[in-house]
Amino acid sequence: MRESKIAVEKNDSKKVEPGTFLMEYEGAKILGSLGLPIAKSALATTKDEAVKKAEEIGYPLVLKGMSRDIIHKTEAGIVKLNIRNEKELLEKFEEIIANASSYKRDAVMAGVLIQEMAPKGIELIFGIKKDPTFGHQLVIGYGGTLVEIMKDFSMRMMPVSLNDIEEMIKELKAFPILEGYRGQSGINKSMLYSICLSLNDLVEARPEIEELDLNPVIFANNEAIICDVRISIGEHLGVESSPRDLSNLKYMINPQSIAVVGASTNEKKNGGRLFRYIVENGYNGKLYPINPGADNIKGFKAYPSLTEVPEEVELACIIVGANHVPKVMEECVQKGVKAAIIYSSGFSEIGEEGRKLQNQIIEIAKRGNIRVLGPNSIGIASPGKNIYTAFGAALESKVKVPGNIGFISQSGAMGSALLSRAWDQGAGFSRWVSVANEADLSTSDFIELLATDEETKVISIFMEGIKDVRSFQKAAKKAIENQKPLLVFKTGRSSIGQKAVQSHTGSIAGDDAVYSVALKKYGALRIEQLDEMIDVSRAFNVQKLPNGRRIGVLTASGGACSVIADLCSEKGLEVPELTEASDKIQEYIPPFGSAVNPIDVTAEVIAKPEMFKKVLEILVQDQNLDGIIVMLTTNADPGAVVIAQAIVDVFRQHDKPIVVGRLGADSIAPQAMALYQKENFPVYSSPERVVSVMNYLVKYSELLKKQQ
Amino acid sequence: MRESKIAVEKNDSKKVEPGTFLMEYEGAKILGSLGLPIAKSALATTKDEAVKKAEEIGYPLVLKGMSRDIIHKTEAGIVKLNIRNEKELLEKFEEIIANASSYKRDAVMAGVLIQEMAPKGIELIFGIKKDPTFGHQLVIGYGGTLVEIMKDFSMRMMPVSLNDIEEMIKELKAFPILEGYRGQSGINKSMLYSICLSLNDLVEARPEIEELDLNPVIFANNEAIICDVRISIGEHLGVESSPRDLSNLKYMINPQSIAVVGASTNEKKNGGRLFRYIVENGYNGKLYPINPGADNIKGFKAYPSLTEVPEEVELACIIVGANHVPKVMEECVQKGVKAAIIYSSGFSEIGEEGRKLQNQIIEIAKRGNIRVLGPNSIGIASPGKNIYTAFGAALESKVKVPGNIGFISQSGAMGSALLSRAWDQGAGFSRWVSVANEADLSTSDFIELLATDEETKVISIFMEGIKDVRSFQKAAKKAIENQKPLLVFKTGRSSIGQKAVQSHTGSIAGDDAVYSVALKKYGALRIEQLDEMIDVSRAFNVQKLPNGRRIGVLTASGGACSVIADLCSEKGLEVPELTEASDKIQEYIPPFGSAVNPIDVTAEVIAKPEMFKKVLEILVQDQNLDGIIVMLTTNADPGAVVIAQAIVDVFRQHDKPIVVGRLGADSIAPQAMALYQKENFPVYSSPERVVSVMNYLVKYSELLKKQQ
Repeated sequence: MRESKIAVEKNDSKKVEPGTFLMEYEGAKILGSLGLPIAKSALATTKDEAVKKAEEIGYPLVLKGMSRDIIHKTEAGIVKLNIRNEKELLEKFEEIIANASSYKRDAVMAGVLIQEMAPKGIELIFGIKKDPTFGHQLVIGYGGTLVEIMKDFSMRMMPVSLNDIEEMIKELKAFPILEGYRGQSGINKSMLYSICLSLNDLVEARPEIEELDLNPVIFANNEAIICDVRISIGEHLGVESSPRDLSNLKYMINPQSIAVVGASTNEKKNGGRLFRYIVENGYNGKLYPINPGADNIKGFKAYPSLTEVPEEVELACIIVGANHVPKVMEECVQKGVKAAIIYSSGFSEIGEEGRKLQNQIIEIAKRGNIRVLGPNSIGIASPGKNIYTAFGAALESKVKVPGNIGFISQSGAMGSALLSRAWDQGAGFSRWVSVANEADLSTSDFIELLATDEETKVISIFMEGIKDVRSFQKAAKKAIENQKPLLVFKTGRSSIGQKAVQSHTGSIAGDDAVYSVALKKYGALRIEQLDEMIDVSRAFNVQKLPNGRRIGVLTASGGACSVIADLCSEKGLEVPELTEASDKIQEYIPPFGSAVNPIDVTAEVIAKPEMFKKVLEILVQDQNLDGIIVMLTTNADPGAVVIAQAIVDVFRQHDKPIVVGRLGADSIAPQAMALYQKENFPVYSSPERVVSVMNYLVKYSELLKKQQ
Repeated sequence: MRESKIAVEKNDSKKVEPGTFLMEYEGAKILGSLGLPIAKSALATTKDEAVKKAEEIGYPLVLKGMSRDIIHKTEAGIVKLNIRNEKELLEKFEEIIANASSYKRDAVMAGVLIQEMAPKGIELIFGIKKDPTFGHQLVIGYGGTLVEIMKDFSMRMMPVSLNDIEEMIKELKAFPILEGYRGQSGINKSMLYSICLSLNDLVEARPEIEELDLNPVIFANNEAIICDVRISIGEHLGVESSPRDLSNLKYMINPQSIAVVGASTNEKKNGGRLFRYIVENGYNGKLYPINPGADNIKGFKAYPSLTEVPEEVELACIIVGANHVPKVMEECVQKGVKAAIIYSSGFSEIGEEGRKLQNQIIEIAKRGNIRVLGPNSIGIASPGKNIYTAFGAALESKVKVPGNIGFISQSGAMGSALLSRAWDQGAGFSRWVSVANEADLSTSDFIELLATDEETKVISIFMEGIKDVRSFQKAAKKAIENQKPLLVFKTGRSSIGQKAVQSHTGSIAGDDAVYSVALKKYGALRIEQLDEMIDVSRAFNVQKLPNGRRIGVLTASGGACSVIADLCSEKGLEVPELTEASDKIQEYIPPFGSAVNPIDVTAEVIAKPEMFKKVLEILVQDQNLDGIIVMLTTNADPGAVVIAQAIVDVFRQHDKPIVVGRLGADSIAPQAMALYQKENFPVYSSPERVVSVMNYLVKYSELLKKQQ
């Protein structure tokens, strides 16, 4: 080859090292073998060859320099469009060779790709991204090379179903364009479906694919042409999830006997506080403080070591220095302890040395078939059973409300803070768990536990990340089977991936977006804001699920009507016209009120609070509505009590959700607030909260329908 | 003309009736005369003429049927692209005539426009929309005919400055494309500037322009070509704002003497409640209940009518049936009353009849130079002066906190509810005003008043709409001059415009978006959520303004760090690396904490709360930071008090904002909460609140810089 700046590269796709990109012609070969509509192309290493291949394919053409060393081809100036004849071909061929070496001196070139020029059309991107936790994700985006600017894309876990694909394209803002917008022709959808299904096959056959970009794929003249292919290969590590025996978990949450290793008479110490919380909150099983320096702690006989306790110990609470934990764990094995909570810190959270210590104690635990919570855990609390094997400052709360929310936190501090705030608001809990380092028991294990826990109706999670996706999937499924909503607040949304993003797909679909897709797929409801967590958990505890998104709004103020209507519109909730209710409501409210949805019964409700119940009863029965939002403004006792009773009564007698807000202060309606609390009926403090809660009910109801 | 289905239309642009569209060639003429780069074109009424014009312009061409009766040309099939020769021209000409009459049988056609075919390029839309309140708005959008799908546009009030234009294009998501993306060429920006400035001239010369679409404007080859013009003409009504004498307003807010017309001994009646609130809250001026059926109300001598009060009356509070109000107003004139609050309902809010009555009382008021608040008002409260001439249920609050927030509400019920909730949270108010029907005194009048009110530091508004934009502008300016933040929550965001939207500009840029643009322009800060209103008002009351958006984050939990970092990233706040602080902080915190931003001092702060002050002091002084967010989790007394004192002390000694959140319940740290309240230092209950508050401080600081 005369102009032999092209040093033909020896590798082929099968020998590509993990972490490298396949060159376009290599990727195209793989896709072509799956029957995907790749633009006609051929690799040329010499000008003569280029001329020959060009004749075969037919002008106009695109030329692209191929080098494993150059990822951003356009930037390097090694892509040349609209080559119309041999003269241009030869010119541009040389230009590509020159540009490549000036862009990257030592770039090894495999040749120049001669490719048919695609017609103008609708440009989409199809991408695959392999998430370390959730595996391969399919991305469809609008805008071709502009996709990063447009940020119009949708994503699903692979393999995708036909139904997934249909949803994905409907989610695109550009969906009307795909359908054919303003008289322009749309895309051939069956081509799109077939591309997606072939990509399913691809990742099944080649699970080592790390990332893939088909960009752009041009839809024109009822066809689709893949104009560029970029595939990155990684390592495929099979996921193994060894089955575990969780039968001893029951001793952790309902122990008949507890030993507190590290209990202290000094209540400023964590061990002193922990022991005090267990005692003062009325634990009624057997309790053994273990402390070699004490005879008696808070009236309980103390033992110098676990092995000296004369009777059986089901649960060991270990709150000693990290270095002492292995010895205590050995004693647990010796003693036949079933479960252990390790509060001590100094394990994997401090780095490599701690991780070793952690592995050591887990090895010991395995020997004794002991289930371990922690290390670095704040503990577990079971308010309904008066068992508080936890030492978070939340336990300083005077009021500890039992109830039906099961809460799992991967952050001890945030979990404890939320617990205290929730109690302050009257929310009741069945279980509260700080899973911390998850050396043994994981978030998923506790989801599975709570899914069958009689006292738990709703499972709420403060999540930093899922470690084992298979067990999460299994646990989430059990929650759905037992009709317990699984609510997840996930943090770490903004974390920037470590590796430099080299693909379009990678740059538009961040790791956090994968969590959203996965949680939805597994039937968990993602809670967007931490400050909605308590509100939403309480709602799922008592509310009925709406059948759809048509909402009736009831207020006593035009201003409230307007605010709620704004928010419903922003969340995509409908505020439809009523069937018969408006005529009936008109009879009860003054002429300057509004009997059409949103309803304004006006301030006359202050003088005539009983009118409110009549209107609410009519409204809840309207066939056009799936749920009711009541937004109260300044509503003081005693009228507020009449309204509260009306709401609770109507809610009981009908099967639609009624979500209630009160903008006015609780302090001007203490009797009404007490009534709501007695009835365990949550009332929210702002229009935003009310609409948000209703929206989560609607979303969960839709999610459930999909799971069925 | 042989194929004379074209009935040549007689009108020309000067005779167009308000409410109609100009045809494209008419609009093009107007724009051409301003020197705008209109695609070359000519109107042809016969085929022969078409052929001749086509030769002059040069193929390829576009043909467009012109009819005032057909607005959506593409839909009607009367736009034909890429006409390459005479044969095609003649064919398509006929097709257009046929399609027009089948689309709309009686469509009168002015001819067929023969237009040069623009090259491919970057397609923008330039639009003008005349808002009934704020006048002409300029819209620049990306995507040409796809702009409604892309929803990528920016808007400013006209006339726009060069600076406005620069901001507008930077606000577009597509800005990188305009700049030249991935090696593609961008747009000729000076062409874009010149189009915008010419449009300024256009609306100045032709204020009757209601809407205008230049869509698409194609930027290619360093040129711009306007390919389609659509102009709609309305009526121009000059805005007049007659100067008013507000000197009597002082009697409304600080009256030395009050007569309550309609005061009652029955405290279930509004007149009874109003009088009770005035008395019980300690009004110390002269007070005259007016009620012909009572001798004495709550120890005050009652008079049968206003005119029988022996002494001067500055303020009349009128709370009688609507029909009696004119007579009472006559008595006010007779008595020389300076100001009146009309609580009575039954005026413009109930329709036409009420409006007449309202006009009648305003006429009477004018005669006596009486300033009127209402009708339908809940009144005014001035907590700092113990004057409560209001009857909202908020006044049932046990604690009424005086302070520096001046609050104006266009919704009585929402305003009253917010007041009670704010008091519950410890927020203090200087004035609270329910402006209601604004028959005389408007929101703007009160903004102007509060802008010079010594007790008021921040002005907060619940807004449904601005009536007179000139007086709002003037009042807002005064607020800025006096360095008082003007915070506006605006409802009615989702209200659907009455007229059918016929333009692209109209359909992307709704009425509410105009409010956002206008409020920003006038220096008001729009509050997005009602439930942020109190938080943000309190913040502006005490906080320092940040110089930029670089935030230092201080927590005692990795979970909190992560949550705050997510939120900062979502709001566009930066969490930068520190200069020297990290090294210094490292000395105080355990090795498993984080000394880099965001800082995690770890739970050790519970045992060593004094460490917190050291870290905060170092952090606040870092040169890379403009403000500090502290997010506390479960933080109980007594440690919480040490931390609270540290925060207050450090805040006082430095000039940066320190916004503090506490996720843990108030009830576990009552002493700390009392300290914050005593210091009037707001603490927010969730990470979302904290970050949102900081973001508003940053936005306002940026807004102020622009005003200077």
